Amino acid sequence: MSPDQVTSHLKKHALFDGCDAAFLTDLAEKAVLQKLAKGQVLFLQQDEAKRFFIVIKGWVKLFRETLDGAQAIVDVIPANQMFGEAPLFLDHVNSYGAEASENSDVISLPLKPLEDELNRNPAFAIAMLKHMAQRQQHQERELEHRDLQTAPQRIGCFILRLADQNQKGQVTLHLPYDKNLVAQRLGMQPETFSRALTKLKDATNMTVKGSTIELESIQKLAEFCCAGCSSQFPCADLKN
Amino acid sequence: MSPDQVTSHLKKHALFDGCDAAFLTDLAEKAVLQKLAKGQVLFLQQDEAKRFFIVIKGWVKLFRETLDGAQAIVDVIPANQMFGEAPLFLDHVNSYGAEASENSDVISLPLKPLEDELNRNPAFAIAMLKHMAQRQQHQERELEHRDLQTAPQRIGCFILRLADQNQKGQVTLHLPYDKNLVAQRLGMQPETFSRALTKLKDATNMTVKGSTIELESIQKLAEFCCAGCSSQFPCADLKN
Repeated sequence: MSPDQVTSHLKKHALFDGCDAAFLTDLAEKAVLQKLAKGQVLFLQQDEAKRFFIVIKGWVKLFRETLDGAQAIVDVIPANQMFGEAPLFLDHVNSYGAEASENSDVISLPLKPLEDELNRNPAFAIAMLKHMAQRQQHQERELEHRDLQTAPQRIGCFILRLADQNQKGQVTLHLPYDKNLVAQRLGMQPETFSRALTKLKDATNMTVKGSTIELESIQKLAEFCCAGCSSQFPCADLKN
Repeated sequence: MSPDQVTSHLKKHALFDGCDAAFLTDLAEKAVLQKLAKGQVLFLQQDEAKRFFIVIKGWVKLFRETLDGAQAIVDVIPANQMFGEAPLFLDHVNSYGAEASENSDVISLPLKPLEDELNRNPAFAIAMLKHMAQRQQHQERELEHRDLQTAPQRIGCFILRLADQNQKGQVTLHLPYDKNLVAQRLGMQPETFSRALTKLKDATNMTVKGSTIELESIQKLAEFCCAGCSSQFPCADLKN
């Protein structure tokens, strides 16, 4: 991947809006494209963090693992999103591991230039603070949903956030990755997920065939799941 | 409360380590001490955020509430900790409400001077990034524990984090606030909390009388609950 291509990927992120061309070119020249096979581990929790990543293709799951091997999914990162920048502010230690959930391409970039730019450019520091505050808000919502939404509502919310929420009438969607990973992402056992999905289908006249979901309407699904959420429909954060 | 007293409270926070005396004095002169009665609401979710707060006495719960009145506790803030600074990076909108869990004193401070200082002082921006990254790590651990720990382990973990984890032998602790709030903080129904507490007592020979907890040893409790956690014992973040 050429530095120009990397620069155009960097420019998709509001985080870099306040950075000048020289900084972006310099950063892009240090980029490496990594092709990951499904299941390949990029780094482990507690590893020293020297690089951050932008997903170009596929999905990368971020996870935390106990000594006895149980895994919690922190997030599943889709194309065009980044991860691995937070350790800059945590003594350069990764607070989660990262593994490709399917064959994936990621751009790997060094953290050091970000650190230098933060010291030099207040606009970049403020953009990084916004970036982290949005992430924090995302986690607050996750914690709230674990407390207040039923399992069928949580699955419904996951589906609703995949959609263009302003669409009218019948809607067709595709699950982005396999159901077991969706279940794990939502903190559910596969059996709980299956039962909850059946309840959700019955309550909203939704049909699911393989990874294809047919909704009667966005509104019908929203009525069902947004009752268990403190935010307003449509989700304001998805406009960002 | 005099500006000097406010300044000494500000200086307890690593966040302000890189700020000069003139900034701290100026900020302290704009401080207001607020005395809150138990149950008094300081602000609501979606309110415009103009001030941030340091708890001096008591406990302030941060919460999110659905339209039908169900509440999720985001956090319960003890004395000497601050809250309400994140909206600086979220269009000045509060992403949670705040209510005194018991009679509490808080220092109320304007957000605007922080904003100016962030633009002026890179060291302050980096300190704010560290502050937010620690908060993010705290939430990642919370989400992990909801997935991987049993209810008795979650209560055990809550108690363990109140203690000096290097103590040897028998230990006496006090629950910081009433059991219903602890249950709500841990995302449990009161009945689930009661049953889980009984299991925890049986598994670790812990006794609970009112708010007083007697532990056979810190190690015994850690063996029981840290099996469901990806971090190492003792908790590294409590050193901060």
